[in-house]
Amino acid sequence: MSPLLKRLPVLDWGRRYNRATLGADLMAALIVTIMLVPQSLAYALLAGLPPEAGIYASILPIVLYAIFGTSRVLAVGPVAVVSLMTAAAVGQVAEAGTAGYAMAALTLALLSGGMLFAMGVLKLGFLANFLSHPVIAGFITASGILIAAGQVRHIMGVQGGGETLPEILHGLWLHVADTNLATLAIGAGAVVFLFWVRKGMKPTLLALGTPKRAADILTKAGPVFAVAATTALVWGLGLADKGVRIVGEVPQGLPPFTVPDLSLSLVSALLIPAALISIIGFVESVSVAQTLAARKRQRIDPDQELLGLGAANMGAAFTGGLPVTGGFARSVVNADAGAETPAAGAFTAVGLAFAAIALTPLLYFLPQATLAATIIVAVLGLVDLGILRRTWAYSRRDFAAVAVTILVTLGLGIETGVSVGVALSVLLHLLNTAQPHVAEVGLVPGSEHFRNIHRHAVQTYPHVLTLRIDESLYFANARFLETMILDRISRSPDLREVILMCSAVNSIDYSALETLEALHNELAARNIRLHLSEVKGPVMDRLQQTHFLQHLSGKVFKSQYDAFHALAKADGAERGNGAGAGTDA
Amino acid sequence: MSPLLKRLPVLDWGRRYNRATLGADLMAALIVTIMLVPQSLAYALLAGLPPEAGIYASILPIVLYAIFGTSRVLAVGPVAVVSLMTAAAVGQVAEAGTAGYAMAALTLALLSGGMLFAMGVLKLGFLANFLSHPVIAGFITASGILIAAGQVRHIMGVQGGGETLPEILHGLWLHVADTNLATLAIGAGAVVFLFWVRKGMKPTLLALGTPKRAADILTKAGPVFAVAATTALVWGLGLADKGVRIVGEVPQGLPPFTVPDLSLSLVSALLIPAALISIIGFVESVSVAQTLAARKRQRIDPDQELLGLGAANMGAAFTGGLPVTGGFARSVVNADAGAETPAAGAFTAVGLAFAAIALTPLLYFLPQATLAATIIVAVLGLVDLGILRRTWAYSRRDFAAVAVTILVTLGLGIETGVSVGVALSVLLHLLNTAQPHVAEVGLVPGSEHFRNIHRHAVQTYPHVLTLRIDESLYFANARFLETMILDRISRSPDLREVILMCSAVNSIDYSALETLEALHNELAARNIRLHLSEVKGPVMDRLQQTHFLQHLSGKVFKSQYDAFHALAKADGAERGNGAGAGTDA
Repeated sequence: MSPLLKRLPVLDWGRRYNRATLGADLMAALIVTIMLVPQSLAYALLAGLPPEAGIYASILPIVLYAIFGTSRVLAVGPVAVVSLMTAAAVGQVAEAGTAGYAMAALTLALLSGGMLFAMGVLKLGFLANFLSHPVIAGFITASGILIAAGQVRHIMGVQGGGETLPEILHGLWLHVADTNLATLAIGAGAVVFLFWVRKGMKPTLLALGTPKRAADILTKAGPVFAVAATTALVWGLGLADKGVRIVGEVPQGLPPFTVPDLSLSLVSALLIPAALISIIGFVESVSVAQTLAARKRQRIDPDQELLGLGAANMGAAFTGGLPVTGGFARSVVNADAGAETPAAGAFTAVGLAFAAIALTPLLYFLPQATLAATIIVAVLGLVDLGILRRTWAYSRRDFAAVAVTILVTLGLGIETGVSVGVALSVLLHLLNTAQPHVAEVGLVPGSEHFRNIHRHAVQTYPHVLTLRIDESLYFANARFLETMILDRISRSPDLREVILMCSAVNSIDYSALETLEALHNELAARNIRLHLSEVKGPVMDRLQQTHFLQHLSGKVFKSQYDAFHALAKADGAERGNGAGAGTDA
Repeated sequence: MSPLLKRLPVLDWGRRYNRATLGADLMAALIVTIMLVPQSLAYALLAGLPPEAGIYASILPIVLYAIFGTSRVLAVGPVAVVSLMTAAAVGQVAEAGTAGYAMAALTLALLSGGMLFAMGVLKLGFLANFLSHPVIAGFITASGILIAAGQVRHIMGVQGGGETLPEILHGLWLHVADTNLATLAIGAGAVVFLFWVRKGMKPTLLALGTPKRAADILTKAGPVFAVAATTALVWGLGLADKGVRIVGEVPQGLPPFTVPDLSLSLVSALLIPAALISIIGFVESVSVAQTLAARKRQRIDPDQELLGLGAANMGAAFTGGLPVTGGFARSVVNADAGAETPAAGAFTAVGLAFAAIALTPLLYFLPQATLAATIIVAVLGLVDLGILRRTWAYSRRDFAAVAVTILVTLGLGIETGVSVGVALSVLLHLLNTAQPHVAEVGLVPGSEHFRNIHRHAVQTYPHVLTLRIDESLYFANARFLETMILDRISRSPDLREVILMCSAVNSIDYSALETLEALHNELAARNIRLHLSEVKGPVMDRLQQTHFLQHLSGKVFKSQYDAFHALAKADGAERGNGAGAGTDA
């Protein structure tokens, strides 16, 4: 594939576009648009922004992702977890509802987009692998619980707030007496209805003889029924005057052109939140894209995904939006609805643009409780407390990582939660890689093979220690090797020769070279010679550029057998004995 | 060793203390005390603090380190790099010379001490291994240059400042016309004298027939001569009235009891600088301690070192000090002077306490230019630009890491430098560990051994792929395995069996298990069976607690030979062929 095709996947699939794919894409776009209107409004409110921001954030970003991204079906826009992270970040620098707040959300989107794009250019997509799955699952689960709990006050029609579960529950407890019964009826009704749409509607429709395809579409449109019915109810009964909070006026028109504030103080305050949002958004989006691509035997390029998501977020920043990423629910709907190419996303953008121009007046009487119900039903799908049970059964260390992430996220808020999750992942990784795998080996009698003395009956000599190093040596593991060898030789006073068998060492970095030199000198001070065997060509080339080999007290042997043979003899001649008993496994 | 002995090394060496060690320790203490008085004053001024803070920071911390630390000879106190980092951190929250500035330095010491102590309790000393040696060398070199350049204005007696090399040089350029000639004469003279003390004094003394021991002591006392001579000069010629800046009044007395300010705003502003100071201080101190311990065949326990340094910093916080760590120069002097036990440190503390009570009036006329000269000569010993040449010759990746660290530190300041250095180290580590080592293997004809097909002439079958996994599987490398296998099978349409040879897999974490399940399902969808061979006992035990083995399309074979044999036959029966040519290396 040419570099340009690789960088702009649109040039690849665009050439092969035809009438059949157009039909499929148009149908998928219609279904996704219907689903996205209430969802976009809801997630904008979750982020503390005016509802139209959610629609704006679903137009240009979708188009930009379609141009740069590699997933055929990923649908980009505001998603629950990222919106909550946006609220947490922006809430620290501005008051909700002010112009400064909306501006800060744009800055956050631009910073996050810039970081993602830069990471894509630097090909750092592999970094996503360094977040442990259980930690991510724990974080997403806890976020879902936090978001759902935070929406309950809208269902009850009371004041409240809070960024942690105890704060949120305390707020609800304080205001429970103020519950607005009309709001509660609408909100609770919508929750029950939407749960039924999710679980019971499709079987019921099919039982009633509805064709499968129509039943599918009707199910996806469930939230739209809820929106229409509750809006009509509020309008018809004049409930807005009885304390039911409504969405109110939503500006009519295409997304505005906005320029994010890049003042130093705002940027420096939002830099770390932007990094955390980028990480979580990227990991979530890539895992959605990979899951859906695997179904169709397609592959996702993580570096290209970074470019796509980066472009999408920068687009959101300049069109009155908020940070976006690939969402699970909308992408699954897009895929299930038969989307064939990213053009489905572009058509969705057109649909949403139409909604922004023409449909917003219809949303005036839409009760906020309905949107809260949409959010609650959506995010409870993210909650997977079973991860606690599954990791407990499999590995206590993984369980501890999940449990800590969940508790910290619920107890200290989403930003601390994600920071702790990332830190835990890195710590687990360091623990996993701190020690190079090193085996003490001996000769398998009657052969030229060397095996671990703890597992095989092998021949060894008390004055020769052979260690097979099973990994490349570099700064993070070299010192462990040094410590391990020094501890080992302190237990063997007869030791005179140490052989490092380097058959699995693909590289030795400069730090490891320094450590080998230090080890060599410590051994020399104890009258022990250091030898190398089976050093690979490229490693040898590099060592020959240093003074290490000139100063080496021992030799570099081509094969371990030669080394073992030569050093055993050397001692046999001096002391007249040698062969020691091997250790059985 | 009992747990208490391990936690309080003083109980171990204290019991075996005798007259000979007492004599050696007293002598070392005297020499170190003489050296530390001007050095402590100088590093306090470098940190932007009143000179006495440097002496205070060398008293209680030394005693606390002697109780908790494992090095016999490490001397703890203010050191150049940490003092500059202190100035950079505290300068952001308070004005130099104010009470708030000194208070912030105490808070910084307490935070840093608390972090070090907590890391020691959590046994996180191994984390120091994750900083690459070249990155540390680059950072220390650049810091030395920054510090030396920053002191030149005191030698010239002009205003100036700046946190980066361009700023510092620009400041000097602006004020060069204001140079105070008397100051310059004293400062330049002191620099030349101190360089001579370092390089030429000892040979000269020996040539004049001075006994070696006396020559040693006189050489260490060199800075004291410079202090005495220039102080006398300023006093005798009344140079303080001619613009030569002097130290002035230094309070007489023991260290005060101080309580650091722990207000939330101050703590949150200093948290990250404290973490960076802890990292650098710890790495510097441990490498000094290990170097000196290796000379005497002693071992350093990094976790216990964290406790020692943590206690020392907390001690500094409560006695009017500043962040401290184990210093290279003073520790080498201590070791060379014959210190046998940490009691030498305690005696040094007594000596410094005496200096704080009795000697401070003598320092009134001490010119600041002399202290600047002390710093310049000391830190230029840290500068090792040869690291650039050595890493260039050995490895371009290591060279890039050093060069970036040096340039960023010089160009953007010491805090950015250390942050970038740490980030670079982690990135290098991730790059080094991102891909698990996996080899495609085949049967060595006439044996039961399996070897890499790219290096040996081995037997393979086109419908069987055997991959030997040379590492434990966990979240950071499992997905690479998945990608690698899926890419590999896409090139072999005849493939029906994949065997993962797990002889080197010591553990499979929960993330890796999920990845294996995903891989299994993708292979199953392509009609390819997945088998495991040579799975270790503990790994097998854990897998048996999951559903993975029940759903497995293939089998788990005890030995790779059995697997190869069974699957080759299976196909042979079906298709009547099988043996493919091995690939030669």
